[in-house]
Amino acid sequence: MADPTVTDPDKYRVVFENEAVRVLEYRDDPGARTSSHDHPASVMITLSGFDRRISVGEQTRDVTLAAGEVRWLDAQSHWGENIGSTPSHAVFVELKGSAVISRNATLGPLEAS
Amino acid sequence: MADPTVTDPDKYRVVFENEAVRVLEYRDDPGARTSSHDHPASVMITLSGFDRRISVGEQTRDVTLAAGEVRWLDAQSHWGENIGSTPSHAVFVELKGSAVISRNATLGPLEAS
Repeated sequence: MADPTVTDPDKYRVVFENEAVRVLEYRDDPGARTSSHDHPASVMITLSGFDRRISVGEQTRDVTLAAGEVRWLDAQSHWGENIGSTPSHAVFVELKGSAVISRNATLGPLEAS
Repeated sequence: MADPTVTDPDKYRVVFENEAVRVLEYRDDPGARTSSHDHPASVMITLSGFDRRISVGEQTRDVTLAAGEVRWLDAQSHWGENIGSTPSHAVFVELKGSAVISRNATLGPLEAS
């Protein structure tokens, strides 16, 4: 596991943790790019709007999110880049029971259903 | 279980659900009060700042939260009242594996650690 709080400690910080969940706060500025890291199955809640490119290997996906959106994130490895003109601010609720990295997970947050 | 989307459908709505979590969005206006309802163990993320009174039986607790705060909520029954001058807006990530209502749970969101 490449823990994002280890690979990118300037962007990810732990705001809460117990036996069931770990909650991360993410912040970056336009142009910032993370190292490759792993997420367990998580719920992402956006606290700002932002434009983001998410990549793993040759695969890339661009997402545009508004503030206050809720997205499920399958367990996955990726790196991210702020491709917009505004800072990113989001919370990730990591589920400890679902920590296996799935190799056929959807890259990045799922679309709203 | 008194599901808050049933007791207070004008305030709570489901924004995402799968086998691991159900995510609720909560909104109300100053002076609004919910019916008594049950929460499984949940993570609450505030999207606005608000002042709230949370009650069960004779027990009452007032909390003041800013936007962008993250709080663990033990599984519990309670009702809530917006005692401030601003609308409330929050997201609850309900954990499906932890749905038992604990009778000695901390009322309302835990303090930041």
